[in-house]
Amino acid sequence: MKQNLCNRRTFLTASTFVAASTVFLKQNEVLTAPVANEKMAMKLSFRPYELKLNHPFTLATSTRTATPGVQVEIEFDGKTGYGEAALPPYLGESAESVSAFLKRINLTAFANPFETEDILDYVDKITENNTAAKAAVDIALHDLIGKLLGVPCYRLFGLSPQRIPPTTFTISIAKPDVIRTQTKDAAQKFKMLKVKLGRDNDKEIIETIRSVTDLPLIVDVNQGWKDKRYALDNICWLKERGIIMVEQPLPKSWWEEAGWLTERSPLPIFADESLQRISDVMKIKGYFSGINIKLMKCTGMREAWKMINLARVCHLGVMLGCMTETSCAIAAAVHLSPAVDFVDLDGNLLISNDLFQGVRLENGRQLPTDLPGLGIKKIEQQT
Amino acid sequence: MKQNLCNRRTFLTASTFVAASTVFLKQNEVLTAPVANEKMAMKLSFRPYELKLNHPFTLATSTRTATPGVQVEIEFDGKTGYGEAALPPYLGESAESVSAFLKRINLTAFANPFETEDILDYVDKITENNTAAKAAVDIALHDLIGKLLGVPCYRLFGLSPQRIPPTTFTISIAKPDVIRTQTKDAAQKFKMLKVKLGRDNDKEIIETIRSVTDLPLIVDVNQGWKDKRYALDNICWLKERGIIMVEQPLPKSWWEEAGWLTERSPLPIFADESLQRISDVMKIKGYFSGINIKLMKCTGMREAWKMINLARVCHLGVMLGCMTETSCAIAAAVHLSPAVDFVDLDGNLLISNDLFQGVRLENGRQLPTDLPGLGIKKIEQQT
Repeated sequence: MKQNLCNRRTFLTASTFVAASTVFLKQNEVLTAPVANEKMAMKLSFRPYELKLNHPFTLATSTRTATPGVQVEIEFDGKTGYGEAALPPYLGESAESVSAFLKRINLTAFANPFETEDILDYVDKITENNTAAKAAVDIALHDLIGKLLGVPCYRLFGLSPQRIPPTTFTISIAKPDVIRTQTKDAAQKFKMLKVKLGRDNDKEIIETIRSVTDLPLIVDVNQGWKDKRYALDNICWLKERGIIMVEQPLPKSWWEEAGWLTERSPLPIFADESLQRISDVMKIKGYFSGINIKLMKCTGMREAWKMINLARVCHLGVMLGCMTETSCAIAAAVHLSPAVDFVDLDGNLLISNDLFQGVRLENGRQLPTDLPGLGIKKIEQQT
Repeated sequence: MKQNLCNRRTFLTASTFVAASTVFLKQNEVLTAPVANEKMAMKLSFRPYELKLNHPFTLATSTRTATPGVQVEIEFDGKTGYGEAALPPYLGESAESVSAFLKRINLTAFANPFETEDILDYVDKITENNTAAKAAVDIALHDLIGKLLGVPCYRLFGLSPQRIPPTTFTISIAKPDVIRTQTKDAAQKFKMLKVKLGRDNDKEIIETIRSVTDLPLIVDVNQGWKDKRYALDNICWLKERGIIMVEQPLPKSWWEEAGWLTERSPLPIFADESLQRISDVMKIKGYFSGINIKLMKCTGMREAWKMINLARVCHLGVMLGCMTETSCAIAAAVHLSPAVDFVDLDGNLLISNDLFQGVRLENGRQLPTDLPGLGIKKIEQQT
C-alpha cells in the first residue's frame, strides 16, 4: 500500500533526522542545579607569546628561528587551567587570528567546566577553522578539570603513564658533520630518532645518521616524494637500514598512490598532512597504516582521544605529534600518549624560553608529573 | 630498485604492526608511583539476584515473569562501586556463567581503578563473550571512580544532565482493553511511548494506542517482519499515525534488505539485534539510520561512550536501551544519556524488588542525582 507515495518522499537522512530530533527531544531545561559554584563563571584570558628556537628549524620548504603562540588561561573556583595555541606559519593561524577568535568566546552561558562536550561544541562552531585556538581552550579546560578534581589528566582518560612509549627526537637537516654531532648527542638521551627527508640528499642523511647510531628511526617526508615507485624504492632501501616507519611520503591529496604504496610497503606508512580532524580518520583506512594526531590540528585533547579510539576501530596505528610548543601543550599530548604507538613530542625541548615545567625526559620518554591537571607549573619568564 | 623483492614481502598490516610495535615500545616499566593507595588493592565481590517483574514481559517469541541478574561490588580506598549484570535468557548468559567469569578476574595487578583502559582491556580478554558480566565490572568501576573523585559519572564524560531526552516507556502486548488502560496510565507520566510489534496484530495494537494518546511512539519489531516490501508498507502506514522511529524491523542478518528499507523509509530505522559492540558500528552505516546501544551487550559505559562517539562520526543516530535492570545499571545508562537522541531506559520501573534508589522519573525523563558516581544508594532488600 502507498508504496509509490512512500518512495517519492525524501529519505530522512541520519543527519537531518538528528537535527530534527534535537528540536524534538532536547528542551534544554535546567533540571539539576550545579553541585556547587552556581554563581561562579569561567573567566578566559590570553596573551601572545613568541617561542624562540634553540636552533633554526628546517623543513623541506622553509627555515625559521621562532614560532608565534598564544597562551590561554581559564579560571574557575580558585583554580587556573593553562592552554596554548602554537602557530607554525604553514597552518594559517597567527597570534592575531587566534586573539580575534578567543575574544569571541563567552563562557558565561556554562555553569561549570565539566560540561566539556557542550563547551567545546560551542567553541568549535564559532568558526570553521582556528584549530589551534580551539586546542588552546580545550587544553586549558582539561587542565582546569584535572585541578578541580585533584587528578592528573591521564586519569581523566583512564590511562596508565607506565605505558608511555619513548618519544622520537628530530635530527635537524644540516651538513654531515653537524648531523653526526647532533645524532651522537641525541643518541645519549633518546631511544628513537626522527629525521625529515624529501630533498635530494635523503640517502646521504640516512647514511650519516647510521654512521653514528643504530637507534630505531622514523622518517618524515612531509609530502616530499612525487612518484609512488620512487617512494617504494626508497622505503625498501630504508627498511634495510633499520627505519621503522615512514610519515607522509607522498603529496597529501594523492590517495590512490598512498593506497598503492601502503599495500606494497615493507614499512608502515602514516598519514600526517592527509588528515586533520576526526572526520578525516575513516577515509584514511585502506590508504595508510596509521595516523599522526596533533593537538593543534585536531582542536585539542578531547577530539584527539576520540580520534585514537576511532583509529583503533579502523585498525590504524596512532602517533602523537606536536609543533614547537611550551611544556603546556606538550604535557597535554603526553597525558594521552599511553594510548598510542608512536610518540613525537620533542617540541618543548627545542625552545629556549619555555613558560612551564612539568614534563620530564626520562629514559627517552616524555613523562607527566603526578600533579593535578596537566601537572605543569609556571616558571619565571626568561627575557 | 629491489621492487620485486619488495612486492613479495608480506605487507605489514596495521594490526601486526601494532602488535610488533607494542613489543618494541611498551616496556611496562612502572615509572611513577601511584599518587596514593599504593598498598591497597581493589576487591571484587558479587551475588546472584533475581529481578521480579511487575507484569509478565512479552516479546514476539516469549513471555517471562522474572530476570536473573548478578550484583557486583568493587571496593577501594573505603569506597564501594556498584555494578550489575542483567541476564535476559535470549542473550545466552546465566547467573552461573557470570559468576564463573567474575571468579576469574584478578584485580591485584592494577594499582588503582583509574587505570580503566588497562583494567577493562584485561577483563575483556578473559573470554570472547560474557558481555553482561563485563558490563557489571565496568559499571562498578565507573561508580567507584566517580565516588573517589567526588563527582557524578556524567561529569566523567563531560556531559550535561539538562540535555537528557525523555525516556520511552514500553506498552506491553495484551488485549485491547488492557493496552488502553496501560497507555492511559503511561501517558500521564511519560512523553514518549514504545511498543513491540512483529506479530499478526500490529495495526490493531497501534490503533488501540492511538485511541488513547497522540504521544510520539517508537515501534520495536524485534526482527519480526520477514519481507522488506511488507516492512516498507507498514512503516508508511505507521508514519501516518505519528510513529517517529522503527527498531530492527527485519531479521538481523538481512543487511541488503535493511539498506533497501532505510533508503526508502519515511521514518528512521535503528539497528538493535544487528549490532552488539563497537566493532559492529561501522558496518551499520549505509544500512540503518541509527543504533540502539545497550550496556549489557556492549560491555558497559566505557565502550558505550566510544560507540556514541563513533556513531556521530558515521552520522548515525543513537538510542540507549536496557534490559530488565535495577536502578544501578539504569543509572549507568542515564549518566550517558545526555549524549544520545533516544532514551529507552524504563527497566527499573518494571521490577518490584529494586535494590537501589537514585534514578528519578521527572517530566518523562529518567534523571540522575548529583551524588558522586552513579548517584545511587542501596535500599533495604525486599523479601
